[in-house]
Amino acid sequence: MKNWISKSKILIVGLGLIGGSYARALGRLGCHVAAIDSDPKTIEYAIENGIVDKGSISPDPNLISNADAVIFGLYPEPFLGWIRDNQHLLKSGAMLTDVTGVKKCIVYKIQEILRPDVEFIAAHPMAGKEVSGVVNSDDCIFRDANYIVTPTEKNTDAAVEWCKKLGRILGFMRISVLTPEEHDRMIAFVSQLTHCIAVSLMNCSENEHLADYTGDSFRDLTRIANINDKMWSELFIDNKDDLLEVMDKFINEFKAFRGLLEEEDTDGLREKMRLSTKRRKAFDKK
Amino acid sequence: MKNWISKSKILIVGLGLIGGSYARALGRLGCHVAAIDSDPKTIEYAIENGIVDKGSISPDPNLISNADAVIFGLYPEPFLGWIRDNQHLLKSGAMLTDVTGVKKCIVYKIQEILRPDVEFIAAHPMAGKEVSGVVNSDDCIFRDANYIVTPTEKNTDAAVEWCKKLGRILGFMRISVLTPEEHDRMIAFVSQLTHCIAVSLMNCSENEHLADYTGDSFRDLTRIANINDKMWSELFIDNKDDLLEVMDKFINEFKAFRGLLEEEDTDGLREKMRLSTKRRKAFDKK
Repeated sequence: MKNWISKSKILIVGLGLIGGSYARALGRLGCHVAAIDSDPKTIEYAIENGIVDKGSISPDPNLISNADAVIFGLYPEPFLGWIRDNQHLLKSGAMLTDVTGVKKCIVYKIQEILRPDVEFIAAHPMAGKEVSGVVNSDDCIFRDANYIVTPTEKNTDAAVEWCKKLGRILGFMRISVLTPEEHDRMIAFVSQLTHCIAVSLMNCSENEHLADYTGDSFRDLTRIANINDKMWSELFIDNKDDLLEVMDKFINEFKAFRGLLEEEDTDGLREKMRLSTKRRKAFDKK
Repeated sequence: MKNWISKSKILIVGLGLIGGSYARALGRLGCHVAAIDSDPKTIEYAIENGIVDKGSISPDPNLISNADAVIFGLYPEPFLGWIRDNQHLLKSGAMLTDVTGVKKCIVYKIQEILRPDVEFIAAHPMAGKEVSGVVNSDDCIFRDANYIVTPTEKNTDAAVEWCKKLGRILGFMRISVLTPEEHDRMIAFVSQLTHCIAVSLMNCSENEHLADYTGDSFRDLTRIANINDKMWSELFIDNKDDLLEVMDKFINEFKAFRGLLEEEDTDGLREKMRLSTKRRKAFDKK
């Protein structure tokens, strides 16, 4: 396992923005990178641009059985279906990981049906762009980003170490380990809730001339209102309970602030602002 | 009036982040810039660093009577008091403007009590930083920013033109004209509401380790949770009715989104996201 980077044969299943960015980084590090994606244009583009060495639009037995490690960039449902249909083709001892943005709805299901001689260790690379697809892939997006490994009791220490190492060599700034449950609660708050807010804020007004008057604050708060509707609606529903909980927390906090304003409670408003100022400082990039 | 820039004597009353940035820009353009600020350190710093030519910590009759134009960087209440107490010192024909973030609560009051031989034309430079004070002043913040002139029926066309020209020479990207009422409704939405959201989002969680896991979206949405509590609590209360209205609009929109999630209405969620994506594109910087 020690020198796995230079010797590894990597297969990426689902070559989107993140999968493509993994491919670019791993290829540069000397890995042999293959990809499977149902879209012919994606595979064509990736091969023509040297992002992958080989590719296929179907679950090619050669590509699958050759891979030392398989990285899944699929939505939860197709991911589960792929494992069910194709896991018999995997090399014994292969390491599997993923880039899925929700964990507890998928990790246990995969591990439950998986062959005992391969291992699935889940991870969430918290990087992205407002554009999608392999044509926009770019491993620079990992540089300032966080990477979270989410092992279960079924995972070996060796797999956790392998997965952390993968995050490091991809160039992530900070590598953490959380349980799938901790991950989903946290992600509901720092990522999913923020997208719900941005979408709702953007949808509040029909005024098409707002852009003429806006400052940076509105622009910042709505950047992620430009959103991949297919992916995020699935992620939201897959993490529904945790997300509803933080949405309610936010509504309560926002209504409390509204109440202070209605009462013209200057001290109360200022106290809220001093608290948010203090807390926000922990998020300044070092 | 034609060559007013190079010949003008400008007085800035209230030398904070924005006032200081005006001083830097106008000084470079060849204006003679003086400032009045109650804080001795502010005046000392501004003179030592060549940001102003002259300064005083009190309403110096010489500085006031010399000024062709006076720019007010005061909060609404002190602004009104200053006019009441010192307007007799103004040069006949002087042009007054301001940088206040709310308009209808102050513009009419100032114009009502003002001497007939001077004119107040209000403006809102929509620029800022998360830090305050003359030491952080920097006229680069105007470069990508919007500047809004808010005349009333009492204003002359010449004053509106003068004020628009001021915005242009300060380097603002886009100059607009709105009534004070239109301005306040708009600002409640694009600026004040966003600050209420950021503060509330930041205050939702006590978890101090969130920064270890967060992506850029949370960082973007809470940047302005680092907030000047004295200034913003005043601005919010001064524009309370407009702000409460947009807060309620936002709560309704957010709750509608929450309802779609609870029902697992994928189509409904995707429709909301497609709308926000379409609307957000108008805000991309060209």
